[in-house]
Amino acid sequence: MTIAVIAEEAGVSVPTVSKVINGRPEVAPETRQRVERLLHKHGYQRRVSPGDGPVGLIDLVFAEIESPWAMEIVRGAETAAREAEASVVISVLHTHAGPGRDWLERIAARRTDGVVIVASRLSTGLQGQLSARSMPFVVVDPEGEPANGVASVGATNWHGGLSATRHLLELGHRRIGMIGGPGDMLCSRARIDGYRAALETAGVPVEPELIRHGDFLVDSGHDQGHALLSLADPPTAIFAGSDMQAFGVFEAARQRGLRVPADLSVVGFDDLPLARSAWPPLTTVRQPLQEMADLATRMVLAMGRGDSAEARRVELATDLVVRESTAQPSLTPSSSQW
Amino acid sequence: MTIAVIAEEAGVSVPTVSKVINGRPEVAPETRQRVERLLHKHGYQRRVSPGDGPVGLIDLVFAEIESPWAMEIVRGAETAAREAEASVVISVLHTHAGPGRDWLERIAARRTDGVVIVASRLSTGLQGQLSARSMPFVVVDPEGEPANGVASVGATNWHGGLSATRHLLELGHRRIGMIGGPGDMLCSRARIDGYRAALETAGVPVEPELIRHGDFLVDSGHDQGHALLSLADPPTAIFAGSDMQAFGVFEAARQRGLRVPADLSVVGFDDLPLARSAWPPLTTVRQPLQEMADLATRMVLAMGRGDSAEARRVELATDLVVRESTAQPSLTPSSSQW
Repeated sequence: MTIAVIAEEAGVSVPTVSKVINGRPEVAPETRQRVERLLHKHGYQRRVSPGDGPVGLIDLVFAEIESPWAMEIVRGAETAAREAEASVVISVLHTHAGPGRDWLERIAARRTDGVVIVASRLSTGLQGQLSARSMPFVVVDPEGEPANGVASVGATNWHGGLSATRHLLELGHRRIGMIGGPGDMLCSRARIDGYRAALETAGVPVEPELIRHGDFLVDSGHDQGHALLSLADPPTAIFAGSDMQAFGVFEAARQRGLRVPADLSVVGFDDLPLARSAWPPLTTVRQPLQEMADLATRMVLAMGRGDSAEARRVELATDLVVRESTAQPSLTPSSSQW
Repeated sequence: MTIAVIAEEAGVSVPTVSKVINGRPEVAPETRQRVERLLHKHGYQRRVSPGDGPVGLIDLVFAEIESPWAMEIVRGAETAAREAEASVVISVLHTHAGPGRDWLERIAARRTDGVVIVASRLSTGLQGQLSARSMPFVVVDPEGEPANGVASVGATNWHGGLSATRHLLELGHRRIGMIGGPGDMLCSRARIDGYRAALETAGVPVEPELIRHGDFLVDSGHDQGHALLSLADPPTAIFAGSDMQAFGVFEAARQRGLRVPADLSVVGFDDLPLARSAWPPLTTVRQPLQEMADLATRMVLAMGRGDSAEARRVELATDLVVRESTAQPSLTPSSSQW
């Protein structure tokens, strides 16, 4: 498949096709999209010319970097990149909608050896644009369902939700609150489904009022924690969708004079380094964030070398880490404390 | 000053000087050093050729990224870079000795618009090498005293140490422990000197056994906290050199059955986002980490554009943030609790 064939089929000149491939701005949007569709359809791979060796840069693209969660991802990616004598470029998009055209054009102009996209949505259009420019990419912890052929690395979120909830059930809890992430994030849905599965398997009814959504940061744990604890029949345990949310639940509990775990058990998700030194030390579902980013970076580097033809979808195992924020429910119903 | 003059003075060919300037590896080390010294001595500035526009990359160089502290620096640098339509490249050196020649050669080969070096030592040799390659650079929170002509951004560490210690003295504490960073880090020395100054001004003797050193992470706070609390006459308050260390002191206090702040007051340094949601919420000295990195990145971008001829040395103000981890010392001497 040569550029000339694409040009003919698109009804444009060969230089126009080249401009699209190289991310040059001076092409009309409709023309660009038509050419990109054809490049994608024909599985065009830019031929590597002698000057086209690796540039030593891996792009790591975040929606946000507000939580120490992001630092674990950076550490994993940096380790893998350094071993390949590359450096990590960080972009923060401040949107979960995935990188846009501006971003893509800047990256195409300076070149990259690969793109690792973290916790974002990836439009089909963008996938075509990345593919057309021969930029290998992998999604870490994808926000939505990655399209066919997209490589991704996640964690076993469903299983993590299941094991956290089972742990609380085994301790004797029956009213278990759940705080998830945004309703449309896949990782959050999977955790909530694991929670539901554990309850249903144990014959405990799933109460919609006990399931809340936040944004994975401390404040949403605090706010949703208060909302759950204000219910007429409040939960005796809360499974938070992230460690940061769990710290927010700790805060809400203290403000209401509740002791963790005597009056309220709390489980987090992530196992950030701080979970261990929190008070009480946080029972949480460990997802191997550094390993996830390390693997995604290795995958994208391998794709750039042409080592791996097939996109892989990988989920790394989660583990329940039991510390001191969970215990049997107290015999007095917690609602009697108000 | 032309390359030809440098070549003549160094006794090498013009292509050899070019190779040194462009960071090419095939030059003998002694020759390279001789040429670099001459380039530095003559204040050589690489002439900007038409293809030499900005590359849209700012290099942010860390010794380590183990603490959420580093995330604040990344956030500040990323904000400033994004406004300039540039991206941030992260390197983690795993040494405080500053970037070495390997790193420099890789960066020179792909080019950078500027280098922001965080909490590292910067050898005179490296400064010459960066200058010779016209790479503008700024040091954030320098580990040692930056040489003349080196631009740097820090915080008013001495004043921060003074205000933290004064706060504890005003509450009535007289035996105040201090955990600093590594003894040779300038920011740590300044905080300890502020601590001493506060004690001396208040007529309280400075006890060497009350001054400890760690590495600014949780574990060192935990270990040095235990060491201080094991003294025959333990302190009633501890000023930790970082928030992470303060969290480690919290842990040590809990393990010894001491309540913060009733039995032990604790002050941190940094005011990371987590300080607010810690238990108890941490009294700490806020240093504006995001602003420091933002300013350093703007400075280096301005230097790259030739906007700022003079290297500046800036210290941004610290503020004491009083929360709930400090209180008056209890009337019972804490040593009686063992």
